[in-house]
Amino acid sequence: MDHRQPVYSGLLVIHPAFTPATARSAAPPADKSQSKRLKRLSLCAFVSFVFFVRSAEGASALNVVSSFRRSSAKRNHVSGCRLNKSTRAEDWLPPWSTIPTMHRSGRHFLQIPGPTNTPDRVLRAMAQPTIDHRSAEFAALGRSVLAGLQRIFQTSQPVVMYPASGTGAWEASLVNTLSPGDRVLAFDIGEFSRGWAEVARRLGLDVDLVEGDWRHGVDPDTVEARLREDRGHRIRAVLVVHNETSTGVTSRVPEIRQAIDRAGHPALLLVDAVSSLGSIDLRHDEWRIDVTLSGSQKGLMLPPGLGFNAISDKALAASRSARLPRSYFSWELMLGPNATGFFPYTPATNLLFGLREALAMLDEEGLAHVFARHHRLAAAARAAVTGWGLEIACAREDEYSPVLTAVMMPPGHDADRFRAVVLERFNMSLGAGLGRFKGRVFRIGHLGDFNDLMLAGTLCGVEMGLALAGVPVSRGGVQAALTSLSSVAPIVQ
Amino acid sequence: MDHRQPVYSGLLVIHPAFTPATARSAAPPADKSQSKRLKRLSLCAFVSFVFFVRSAEGASALNVVSSFRRSSAKRNHVSGCRLNKSTRAEDWLPPWSTIPTMHRSGRHFLQIPGPTNTPDRVLRAMAQPTIDHRSAEFAALGRSVLAGLQRIFQTSQPVVMYPASGTGAWEASLVNTLSPGDRVLAFDIGEFSRGWAEVARRLGLDVDLVEGDWRHGVDPDTVEARLREDRGHRIRAVLVVHNETSTGVTSRVPEIRQAIDRAGHPALLLVDAVSSLGSIDLRHDEWRIDVTLSGSQKGLMLPPGLGFNAISDKALAASRSARLPRSYFSWELMLGPNATGFFPYTPATNLLFGLREALAMLDEEGLAHVFARHHRLAAAARAAVTGWGLEIACAREDEYSPVLTAVMMPPGHDADRFRAVVLERFNMSLGAGLGRFKGRVFRIGHLGDFNDLMLAGTLCGVEMGLALAGVPVSRGGVQAALTSLSSVAPIVQ
Amino acid sequence: MDHRQPVYSGLLVIHPAFTPATARSAAPPADKSQSKRLKRLSLCAFVSFVFFVRSAEGASALNVVSSFRRSSAKRNHVSGCRLNKSTRAEDWLPPWSTIPTMHRSGRHFLQIPGPTNTPDRVLRAMAQPTIDHRSAEFAALGRSVLAGLQRIFQTSQPVVMYPASGTGAWEASLVNTLSPGDRVLAFDIGEFSRGWAEVARRLGLDVDLVEGDWRHGVDPDTVEARLREDRGHRIRAVLVVHNETSTGVTSRVPEIRQAIDRAGHPALLLVDAVSSLGSIDLRHDEWRIDVTLSGSQKGLMLPPGLGFNAISDKALAASRSARLPRSYFSWELMLGPNATGFFPYTPATNLLFGLREALAMLDEEGLAHVFARHHRLAAAARAAVTGWGLEIACAREDEYSPVLTAVMMPPGHDADRFRAVVLERFNMSLGAGLGRFKGRVFRIGHLGDFNDLMLAGTLCGVEMGLALAGVPVSRGGVQAALTSLSSVAPIVQ
Amino acid sequence: MDHRQPVYSGLLVIHPAFTPATARSAAPPADKSQSKRLKRLSLCAFVSFVFFVRSAEGASALNVVSSFRRSSAKRNHVSGCRLNKSTRAEDWLPPWSTIPTMHRSGRHFLQIPGPTNTPDRVLRAMAQPTIDHRSAEFAALGRSVLAGLQRIFQTSQPVVMYPASGTGAWEASLVNTLSPGDRVLAFDIGEFSRGWAEVARRLGLDVDLVEGDWRHGVDPDTVEARLREDRGHRIRAVLVVHNETSTGVTSRVPEIRQAIDRAGHPALLLVDAVSSLGSIDLRHDEWRIDVTLSGSQKGLMLPPGLGFNAISDKALAASRSARLPRSYFSWELMLGPNATGFFPYTPATNLLFGLREALAMLDEEGLAHVFARHHRLAAAARAAVTGWGLEIACAREDEYSPVLTAVMMPPGHDADRFRAVVLERFNMSLGAGLGRFKGRVFRIGHLGDFNDLMLAGTLCGVEMGLALAGVPVSRGGVQAALTSLSSVAPIVQ
Repeated sequence: MDHRQPVYSGLLVIHPAFTPATARSAAPPADKSQSKRLKRLSLCAFVSFVFFVRSAEGASALNVVSSFRRSSAKRNHVSGCRLNKSTRAEDWLPPWSTIPTMHRSGRHFLQIPGPTNTPDRVLRAMAQPTIDHRSAEFAALGRSVLAGLQRIFQTSQPVVMYPASGTGAWEASLVNTLSPGDRVLAFDIGEFSRGWAEVARRLGLDVDLVEGDWRHGVDPDTVEARLREDRGHRIRAVLVVHNETSTGVTSRVPEIRQAIDRAGHPALLLVDAVSSLGSIDLRHDEWRIDVTLSGSQKGLMLPPGLGFNAISDKALAASRSARLPRSYFSWELMLGPNATGFFPYTPATNLLFGLREALAMLDEEGLAHVFARHHRLAAAARAAVTGWGLEIACAREDEYSPVLTAVMMPPGHDADRFRAVVLERFNMSLGAGLGRFKGRVFRIGHLGDFNDLMLAGTLCGVEMGLALAGVPVSRGGVQAALTSLSSVAPIVQ
Repeated sequence: MDHRQPVYSGLLVIHPAFTPATARSAAPPADKSQSKRLKRLSLCAFVSFVFFVRSAEGASALNVVSSFRRSSAKRNHVSGCRLNKSTRAEDWLPPWSTIPTMHRSGRHFLQIPGPTNTPDRVLRAMAQPTIDHRSAEFAALGRSVLAGLQRIFQTSQPVVMYPASGTGAWEASLVNTLSPGDRVLAFDIGEFSRGWAEVARRLGLDVDLVEGDWRHGVDPDTVEARLREDRGHRIRAVLVVHNETSTGVTSRVPEIRQAIDRAGHPALLLVDAVSSLGSIDLRHDEWRIDVTLSGSQKGLMLPPGLGFNAISDKALAASRSARLPRSYFSWELMLGPNATGFFPYTPATNLLFGLREALAMLDEEGLAHVFARHHRLAAAARAAVTGWGLEIACAREDEYSPVLTAVMMPPGHDADRFRAVVLERFNMSLGAGLGRFKGRVFRIGHLGDFNDLMLAGTLCGVEMGLALAGVPVSRGGVQAALTSLSSVAPIVQ
Repeated sequence: MDHRQPVYSGLLVIHPAFTPATARSAAPPADKSQSKRLKRLSLCAFVSFVFFVRSAEGASALNVVSSFRRSSAKRNHVSGCRLNKSTRAEDWLPPWSTIPTMHRSGRHFLQIPGPTNTPDRVLRAMAQPTIDHRSAEFAALGRSVLAGLQRIFQTSQPVVMYPASGTGAWEASLVNTLSPGDRVLAFDIGEFSRGWAEVARRLGLDVDLVEGDWRHGVDPDTVEARLREDRGHRIRAVLVVHNETSTGVTSRVPEIRQAIDRAGHPALLLVDAVSSLGSIDLRHDEWRIDVTLSGSQKGLMLPPGLGFNAISDKALAASRSARLPRSYFSWELMLGPNATGFFPYTPATNLLFGLREALAMLDEEGLAHVFARHHRLAAAARAAVTGWGLEIACAREDEYSPVLTAVMMPPGHDADRFRAVVLERFNMSLGAGLGRFKGRVFRIGHLGDFNDLMLAGTLCGVEMGLALAGVPVSRGGVQAALTSLSSVAPIVQ
Repeated sequence: MDHRQPVYSGLLVIHPAFTPATARSAAPPADKSQSKRLKRLSLCAFVSFVFFVRSAEGASALNVVSSFRRSSAKRNHVSGCRLNKSTRAEDWLPPWSTIPTMHRSGRHFLQIPGPTNTPDRVLRAMAQPTIDHRSAEFAALGRSVLAGLQRIFQTSQPVVMYPASGTGAWEASLVNTLSPGDRVLAFDIGEFSRGWAEVARRLGLDVDLVEGDWRHGVDPDTVEARLREDRGHRIRAVLVVHNETSTGVTSRVPEIRQAIDRAGHPALLLVDAVSSLGSIDLRHDEWRIDVTLSGSQKGLMLPPGLGFNAISDKALAASRSARLPRSYFSWELMLGPNATGFFPYTPATNLLFGLREALAMLDEEGLAHVFARHHRLAAAARAAVTGWGLEIACAREDEYSPVLTAVMMPPGHDADRFRAVVLERFNMSLGAGLGRFKGRVFRIGHLGDFNDLMLAGTLCGVEMGLALAGVPVSRGGVQAALTSLSSVAPIVQ
C-alpha cells in the first residue's frame, strides 16, 4: 500500500469545493458551462487552500501539500485506503471549524477497553436539557442514581461521586483516608496499578511498591507476608486494582481480603474497580472492601466524566483523622447534601441523566446476567487468540479478565503498526500496549454494552488485520470463537 | 447459578418491581430488614401484576403467563435466550406506557434490506427543532436537498419528493404520466415488482404482467419482443424494478433502455430504484429513464417517510395530458414552489434535515466509492453463502444485487424459524422470504451505512444461527467472506 | 465601540476565516507576529471569498456583496440587526455544505400556527434507531400509537395514518368515500377550506363552494338550508374545517352535525381537524363525524410527516362503493395489517417513535387540561390584541380559535413587513396572512407544547415589533395579557 | 368543570394506570364493558399503589399520601397548579424507574444564573458516540477546544481543563501556585467569594478575609492598602471573583490589577471567572491575571462538568516551587499531553464535543457581540426591577452584573416563597438568595444562550409571580424592560 497516497484524499476533505470534482467523476456534468464553473471553483478553492495553509498552519501543512503532489501520479495505479490520520480534516482546519470529518461508512468499532460503546439510549438521555441542581426534580435524580450505584457496588454503605475521571477517584480514595507520610502497600502489576501508586507518591505518601511481571494479579500470599512483616502496622492501606486494564489480569480480591485477615493487619483495603464495576462481580460489602473506586466510562457504559468512591464504615472512621489536605474530594462535604439527593457543588447533571439510564439498563438485564455475558464473550475472545496461535498476556486462568483480552505480539512484530492497519482498513480502535507492554501487546476490549455479533465482527477484524499486517498466525481464531459462542447459551452460564 | 433464574427474569420484564429480586440474587442484602422489604415488595408487585394483567388485557395475557410457566420446566433443559416475543413488555403494558423495553445488550443488527441502519449522525440531524417551512432558512434547506438529490439520481432534471413511502412514489410515477385504462408492461420478477403492478391495476390501468421465476431480472429481449408486438403503441409505460428487494436480483436497466430503443417504441421507461438509489450505480439521465422513483430508507440511510420521483422531459410532457386524478402526488403543483426551495404543502421538515446530512455523507465518501463499497461487501456475502454450500436466489452473475443477498434454504428447513433463532439468540433481524419465497428464502441486507466488520458480524450470526437451527451447512462461509474482504482493497472498484 | 464593526461581522458570516479578525478587535493579539499572521489570513480569506463567490454563485452573490457595502454607510446610522436573509451563509454556500448557519443566540420563537414547537422529549424519541417494521417490537409500537390516536380523536372506531402531510389526509378522506363526479358541499371560509375544496375539484368531484367573508366559521343554518334544497341527495359529503388555520376561526361542528340531522340529509360529514386535534375538544364519536382528518405537526407536537383519518362505520360503508381510484390512501389496504399493529407498506417508523412519546405527554397532562390550557392562553392573546387596539380577524366570540389568533393590520400597514421586522429583530416567526388576507393579517400561533411564559415572550415580541414597524398601537397589550394570565389558574378552567 | 378533578390528576402521576380515568372524563367510554374494565383497572392500580408505597418507601411516602388527601379539600378553593414537589413521581417511584415525570407543557424557563439553558445544538453535539481518547481524531478535538478556549479567555497562554466543577477549578488554582501556610488575601463579597476562601482554608492556607456588605465588589483601594501594609510580602495571592453569582456584582478587575501594581506587590492575582467567562469581557493577558479559572455551565452554555485554569507565566513559575500536594489538578502533568491535544487521564470526551460546538457558536456570533448582548439584556432586566419599585442588590452602577440581576425582596416577604410560586405556576426556576441573602433576595439569570424574548417572558413571569405572591410592586416593570429592549438595537451598543 502506498503510504503517501492518502494525502490526496486529504485535499478533498480540505475544502468542500473539491467535492464536485469527485461527484463529477461519477456523474459527468450535463453541460460544458457547469464543467467550466467546476474548474474555476476548483482553482479558486486550491488558491484559497494554499493561502490558507500558509498562514494558518505554516510549513508542516505545506509539506503535506507537496508530498501530496508527488504522490498524485502514482495514486491512479494503486489500490488502498485513502483516509489516514495525517490527512484528517481536523488536523489543519482552523480550530473553530465544525465542518464534519469525512464520512467513513458504517459504525466505528470502539474496542479499546474503555471508554466503551455508549448505548444510544444513554446518549439520548444525556441530551436532555440541564435542570436546576437545587430543585426537587434534581433531588429525585440524585437520590435515584446514588441508590442505583449502591446496587451496582453491592453495598448498603454510601457511594459518593465526583465530576472527575477515574484518576480523580484514585485521589479521593487516598486524600480522605490517609495522612502525609503514611505508608501504603501497592503492586506493580500493570500500568494503572503503577499509576495509582504514583498518585500516592505525589500526594506525599510513602509507597511500598511490590514488583510484578504484569502477567499475574496481586498475589494474596505476598500480601499476607508483607503485612505480617509490618509488625508496627505502619502500612495504612493496601492498594489493589481489581481488573488491571493494561494487562487483562484480574486480582482475586476475596482471597486478598482473607490474606489481610489472616495477617491480622488493620490496613485499609482500597480497590480500583474502574474497569470491573458493572461488568465483573464486585461485592463491596461482602468482600469488606474499605474504598471501592470506579469511573463512568467502562461497565457503566457512560462517557468519561464521573468518578466514584464506595466507602466502608472503617474508611469513614479513618477519614475523620486523615490529614491530607482535601476539599474538592472531601467525603465529608459530599455526604451531607447527598442524603437528600444534592451535592455540595454543581454536579455534572447531564452525565447523571445518562447514569440513571445506564443503571436502568443494568437493572433490566440483571447484574448476574451482565456478569455471565461478559464471561461468555471473554471465553470466546480467548478461544480466538488461542486459535490464532497467539499468547494471552494473563498467565493464570483464574485471573483472566472478563472485560478485555491482552494479546502478546509474536517477536519482531509491532503491535502498534498492526493496530494502525486495523484502524485504517477496518475502522476499528484496539487498545495499545502501555508502559512496558508498548508495541508488544494489543488489547481487545469486550466490555460494556456489547454482544455476540459485535464480538464476532471485532475478532474478524483482528484476524484480517493480523494477516494484512503480515503477522504469522493460523486462521482458525474466528472459527474457534464462533464455536465457543454457539456452545454456550447466552444466559444460563 | 440457579437455572430457574431466567424464568424469573422473564417475569422481571413484566413489572419493574421484580428487579430487586434479581439484584438480590447477585448481591444478598446486607441486613434482614431489607430482605423482608424486598419480599413484601415482590409480593405486592406480583399481586398488582396479576390484577393488572387480568383487567388490562384479559385472558390472552393470562394465557401468556401460564404458558410461560408451563414452558419453564422445559427451559431449564435447553440453552437459549429467555427473551421472546410473547414476553416483551410492550405486548401487555397499557398502550400509553413509555416504559422502555428490557435491555438487550449491545447493538441490534438490523440486516433486513431496508430500512437500513440509520447513522447516528443522521438521527441527530433529524432531532433539530422544526423550522418555519415558509422561511428563508427553510428555502435554503429545500434547495440544498433538491440539488443534492439530483447528484444522487445523476440527473440535471427535476427531482420531486413527497412525505410518503416508496409505495407513494410508485403511485406518483403512475398518476402523473398515465390516463385511466392505459396499458403498462410490467414483470413479475419479485414481490415488489408485483406490488407496483398491483398499484397500477388499482388505479385503473391495464397491466400486462409478464411472468417470471423470481430468480432473474427483467429480460431485455422480452421487453423488445413485447414492444415490437405492440404495433399500435397501446403500451404507454414499461415498469422495471432496478433492484428487486425480495429476491436480490438487479435488472439490467441500460440494456432494457436499448431494447426499447431497438423496438422503436415510444413507451415511457419507469424505474423503481427504491433499494438501489445511493447504493448501486443508477444514471437517470444517461440511461434516459423517464421516471426514477425511490424512497428514503435504503441507500439514503434515512428512516422511512420520503418518496422521490426524478422526471425526464418526456415524462413531464406526458404529465400534461395524463388524466388519472391526482392532487397530493401532482408534479405540477410541486415543481412551482420547488424552484425556490419550497413545497406546496407542509413538508416533512425533520426528515429533510436528515436528508441534508445523509447527502453530505454520500458526498464526503463519493458516490463512486459508495458503489464500490457495496460491490465489495456483496461479493464477500456471496462468498459466505457459497462457503456454506447454500444457493443464492439470483441465478445470473450479472444480476447479483450489491445491496442484499437472498439465500435459498435447503428443502425441509423453514427460513422463518431460522430467522427467529437468529433474532432471539443474536439480536439480529434478517429479511424474510416474501410471497412465493415465504419460508424458502432469507435475505441478508448489506446496504446503507455499512462496513466490513458489520458484515463480518452479520455473517458470523448467520453461520451460527444456521447451525443452531439445525440447517446442514458447511462452516467455511465466514472464512470465505474474510478472505474475500481481505483480498480487495476498500476503495478501488 | 466601533460602529463599523457590525459590517465586518456580516462578512464574518461569509467565511469562517474572518472570525479571528473579530476576536482580535476584542482581544488584541499579544505579539506582532500573530497580528501579521492574522492579516495574512484575512487577506487570503478575502481573496478566497471573492473567488469563491464569483465561481460558485455568480453575479447574484456579488451583488449582495456590493449592496452590502453600499448599505454599510447607512447602517452606521441605524439601529437594527445585521443578519438578514441576503447574507445568510446557506444562500451561497454550495448546496451540499453542512456548515451550520451563524448562531443567533437563544431559542427561536416558532409562533406560526404549525408546525409547532416540537418538545425536545419528542425529538429525542425520534432519534432512536429505526427498527424492523415487520418485527414484534414494531407491532407493539404500531398497536400502541393506533390505540393512543383513538383516545385523542375520542373514538372507538379505527384511525388510520399515512406517511403524508395534512394535504394527503384531505385526499384520503375524499378518495375513500366518493366517486368521480360526486357533489360535495364546501365553504370558502379561509385558505385551507378553499384548499380542501380545490383538492376535491382536482380529483374530479363536483364542488359546491359556499362563499364566506373569512371572518366567520361555517354557518350551521346555511348547511341546513343547502341540504334541504338538495332534495335529490346529490350532495354526498359536507366538508368542514374545524379550526381554520388561516383565519383563527373555529366552526361549531356539533351545531353543524345537528343542522345535517335536522335536514334529514344522508351526506357524510368530513371534518378537517388538522390544527384542532389534540388542542381543541374534538369528539369524533359523540359528534358523529364520518371522517375526521388531521396531521402530526400541530396539537400532536410532532414534526410534519404523518396524516390521519378517523373513520365512522358509515364512512367505511361508503368506502366499499366509492369509485375514485386509490391505492396509497386506501383504507381497506390499511385496516387489515393495522389490526395487528402493522402497515401495508413501510411506515414512517421514527415519526411513530415521536408519536408514541407525544401521546404519552398528552396522556400525562390529561386531554381536558390540554384543552383548558389552550383556552387560557388564547384568552390572554386576545386580551393583548384588544389592548393594542387592533382587531381580531374572527368576528364571533363563540368561534374564537384557542390555537391561534389572526390579527387585522391597520390600513396602510403591511403585515409582512411587520413580520420581517419581528423575525430579524426578535428571532420570532409569526404566521403570514394567506390568500385574500395576504399582507392584511398576521397570525400568532399559541398551540402545541406551549405555556404562559412562552406566550408572554411572544406577545412582548409582537408589541415591540409593532412599535418598531411604525404601526400605531397602544402599548397596553402585554399588560392586559398578563392580567388575563394571572387571573385564571392554569388548570381549573 | 369539576374542581376536584385536579386532585385526581395528582394521583394520576402516581401510577400510569390512572390515566384512563382522566381520559374518560374527557371522553366517556363507548360501552359499558369498557367502563367496567376501567374501574377494575383503577382499583387494581390503587391496590398496587398502596402496597407499593408501603413496601418501597415506607412511612414517609404514606405521609405524603395522607397529607395529599388532607390538602385536597383546601385545594378546591384555591387556584393554582396541582403539580408540586411532594407529588412528583420521582419522589416515590423506585429509584431505578425511568418513567418520565408528568409532562408540564412548554419549555421550562431555567433562569437561575447557571447552569444556563444549554442550546440543543450543544446537546446534540454531546450525543455523539464517545471516541478513543488516544486517537488522532481525539487529538484534533483536543487541540481545537484548547485553542478555542484561549480565544475565549483572550490569552495566548495555556488553558488547562479538568473533568470537574468550578469548585475543582478553585482548588486547581490554589494547589498549583501555593504552599501550605501561605497567606492569601480574599474578600467576603458574596457566597462564592466566601466559598473559595473556605476551600483555601481547608487546603491549609492562611486566609486573610476582608469583610464586605455583599452589595459591592472588591474595592481596588482596599486591595492597594492591604498590600501596602504587607511589607514582608507574606501575601502570596489575591483572590477576586470577577462576577459574584450570589449577588450580581462584578468586581473591577483592571482597577484591581492597577492597585496591585501601584502597591508594587508581587502577589499573584487569581480571578474566578466562573460566571463571567464567555459573557462578560475578561482579558486574561491584557489584565495580567495570573490564574483565571472558570467552569462550563455558564457563559460557555454547556452542562456542568468541566473546570478551567488559564495560566500566566508568573503562575507557571510559581507552580514549580509550590508545595501543596497535587496530582489530579497538577498543571505540570496536564501541560505535557495538552501540547498535542491529549490529556494525562481520560478526559470527559462528550463534554468536549459540546465544548467544540459551543466555542463555534461563540465564534459565529463574535465575542464582542456576545458581550454587547448581555449588556443590553441586563439593562432591560434592571429597568424592570426599577419599574417594579424594587431594589437591585448591587449598589454601584459600574459593578452591575451583565449576567444576572439579584433583587432585594421588600421586608416581610420571603423570596423563597415567591420563587416557589413562580416555579409551580409558571414553570420557571429563579435563583435563590444564598448565605446571608437567604430569603431576602432572588436572582434572575440572563446569561448564556439567551435573547430578548426569552428575557421578556422571564420578566413577565417575575411580574406575575410577585403579584400572585402578594408582594406589593408597581406593574410597570415589564413595560420598562420592553422600552429598554426596543430602544437599543441588538448589535450596535
